[in-house]
Order: sequence, then C-alpha cells, then structure tokens
Amino acid sequence: MTERQKLYEGKAKVIFEGPEPDTLVQYFKDDATAYNAQKKDVISGKGVLNNYISEHIMLALQQTGIPTHFMGRISDREQLIQKLEIIPIEIVVRNIAAGSICPRLGIEEGAPLPRTLVEFCLKDDALGDPLISAEHILTFGWATADELDVIHEDTLRINDFLSGLFYGIGVRLVDFKLEFGRTSTDGNVILADEISPDNCRLWDMQTNEKMDKDRFRRDLGGLVEAYQEIARRLGITVPEV
Amino acid sequence: MTERQKLYEGKAKVIFEGPEPDTLVQYFKDDATAYNAQKKDVISGKGVLNNYISEHIMLALQQTGIPTHFMGRISDREQLIQKLEIIPIEIVVRNIAAGSICPRLGIEEGAPLPRTLVEFCLKDDALGDPLISAEHILTFGWATADELDVIHEDTLRINDFLSGLFYGIGVRLVDFKLEFGRTSTDGNVILADEISPDNCRLWDMQTNEKMDKDRFRRDLGGLVEAYQEIARRLGITVPEV
Repeated sequence: MTERQKLYEGKAKVIFEGPEPDTLVQYFKDDATAYNAQKKDVISGKGVLNNYISEHIMLALQQTGIPTHFMGRISDREQLIQKLEIIPIEIVVRNIAAGSICPRLGIEEGAPLPRTLVEFCLKDDALGDPLISAEHILTFGWATADELDVIHEDTLRINDFLSGLFYGIGVRLVDFKLEFGRTSTDGNVILADEISPDNCRLWDMQTNEKMDKDRFRRDLGGLVEAYQEIARRLGITVPEV
Repeated sequence: MTERQKLYEGKAKVIFEGPEPDTLVQYFKDDATAYNAQKKDVISGKGVLNNYISEHIMLALQQTGIPTHFMGRISDREQLIQKLEIIPIEIVVRNIAAGSICPRLGIEEGAPLPRTLVEFCLKDDALGDPLISAEHILTFGWATADELDVIHEDTLRINDFLSGLFYGIGVRLVDFKLEFGRTSTDGNVILADEISPDNCRLWDMQTNEKMDKDRFRRDLGGLVEAYQEIARRLGITVPEV
C-alpha cells in the first residue's frame, strides 16, 4: 500500500484519494461483518479474493456495455476507480427468496420469486439500512426519476448478464446488492462499489451449497475455500496470501 | 343489531353478511388496539363516532366522484357496504412525518415531507404489516399494474380532497391509511374500509393537539372528546352513547 490519504473507511473496504483528479483507490480489507456489524471477524485472504473477483465481473460488465467506476487493479488489494457522488441507496436484486425477505414477508428460503424483485434500502447504518421504495427516493430527493430509470434499467441488465455468467459456471445467482453514483464530469449514473461473494448470494446449482458470505453469517465455515472456488470457476488466478 | 352471520372479525370492526347479494354489513366496535394489537382497550362510544364520521367522509368522496364501497348507514354502529375482494395492501399517505416513519428514516415528528409520500404495507398481522413497495405488489401479484394505477390516482385525489376538507375545519391531515378492493360485478377497484380518526392523524392547526387515535396509542387520554370535536367541526350530529 502506498501513502495515500484515507477518505473513508467502510466495513469491508477503505477509500483513499487517487493519483489523478476524479479518481480514488478502493482497498479491500479482510474484515467480515454481518447483521449491520453486530457480527464481526477477520478472514485472511477475503479482501484479495474479492478484489480479483470484482475486477473480473466489472470488466465483463463494461465489455457488455454497462458503465462502471472500475478503472484497473493496482495491487492485490487495491483498485483504481472513478470518483463518484454515491447515491445513498442499496439496490437489492432477488431471483430466489433468501435472507431478510424470508422472515419479512413469510417466504421460505429457496422459493423462486414469481419475477425478479428489485428492492431499495437507504444506505444508513445508524438506521439499519431500512427498506424504502421508489416513492421514498423521489420524495426525499435521494435520486431523480431519470436517475432511477437508469438504475432500474442497468440493474435488470446486470441481473440478466450475471445470471448467465454464473449459470455458465454451475452457480445460481440468488440475489445481490448494487450501488450507483454520479460522475463528477457529466453527472451520469454508473455502477459503483464491488460485485463479489460478499454482496451476492451464490448457490452451487448441483448441491445448493452456499458459496458466499452466508458461510460467515451462518457460521458454516469454509468461506475462503468457497470464494476460491468461485474464482477458480470464473477462470481467475488469485495469488495465495 | 340484527341476527346476521358473522363473516370476519377485525380489531375495530366486524363484517356480517348483508341483506342482499354482494352486500355486507360493517359493524363498528369500541375496541381500540395499537402496535399490532399489543396494546388494547375498549373506549365506549368510539365505534359510533367512527361510523358517523366515516359515513360523512365516504359520502363526501362519492359526491366528488371517487367511488367507495359505502352504501348507507343502517344504525348507530352499522353500515351497509358493497362486498369487495379486498386487496391485501394498506396504503399509507403521509403529508407530515409522524408515527412509524420517524424512527424508520430518522425524521423528526412534525417535519413536513418534501412531497406527499405514498407507502404500501402488506396487510398481514402475523408479519406485522411489513412495508412493501410497488415492486413487491407486482412481483407477488397482490394487485396488477392497472389496479395499482387506479389506487395511486384515487389515493392522491382523496388526499387532496380530504386535506382541503380538514383544512376548512382547522385540522391538519397529517397522514392516513386506505384500503381498496375489487367489486364482484366488474372487478373495478374502489375504496373500502373506513376513514375516521382511527386511521387518520389529525392535528389541530392552531395548537397542534392530536385529535386522533394517537391519543390512545400514547396514553394522552381524551380520545372520545377529540373524536367528538372532529364530528362537531364536520357538522355531524352523533348520538350520545
């Protein structure tokens, strides 16, 4: 790691100022948290795996015409990214019921949803990232109607593309979380954050084995091995740490 | 009360079969509940007041061109209503922040919202009537997109009309809850349930005094007197019980 000024430290990543204007460096930590950081641990190697997996997926999305903040991997734990004004919304895409929606709406884990469900949560740890709707977003001006249209359209394309990508390696894309932000140059809304087994639910299509952060959330063990297996199936070579 | 077959008993009302096909009788109880029935009491006279107030408001809405299930008041506690297939959604309309939205989104009670906010909750006591969005409604087929359009349009008209009605009697319409259902004849979506101080937040415009069920929820006392004052200002003569 170089001597860069730290701008923000999140639960699993740190953001540093970048080498050029309108760039940042995104650093992947080994910290794992769940249930709004009530459960915490350090899992050696997780950050490196997520850095490589997210790089792979962001590049694939860019090649399919979906713009992202990703500019390039700098090191085993660092990415160069575009500086964005982050929209304070977590977009949760659900193909199969799992996680918080199950107790909330009384649905059994593993039930296929009648159609892909896009949920929004307000990014606010102090409030526990509460569920919101498009109505709340427009009412409080967290995004404009036009921005929300872009987010919705990109989100459905990303879901289709990634569902196919994972299907191809024998993995079911159960759900995942996205974040978007505005570029400082023209205010365009593009994909931010990361896409990795930290914020996707990925189930092996044969065995239904969980290959994602639920291994940590539910004390199943074998998280690093599961992430390594995702990387291996995606054809990514990740250095051992 | 006549000897009618009871079809459903809710927290504040009982539904009986009606005298004609496609009709029901809606009976207003004195029971008061809050926080998903964790708090309960019987408040003598509340049912009669709500019956008269809701009659008054439903007739006003019908005269302004918004169809409702209300057909006529039968007695001090009974209304004849159209039999509907109730859509399992509570529509919550908020003009000023109060109640559940304040802790949920970190907003101070009494803060005007940037625009009218329409929220949806799933009508499911066992799940605590969880917040949902239009996405959930369409995904799970609780209403069609066309039905949701009708609900949204009627809801905003009702809010405008009732905001004016209450403004005229020195009362601020802070928020309220609506339910809709489908007629058995043509499947049209029309307003159901009741509109009363049980499901509206009504604040005196001069004093900000609460004139609604929050008097019960928050143990402020004087609930019947507040409902009587709403009836009095609306020009309704309600018999003493």
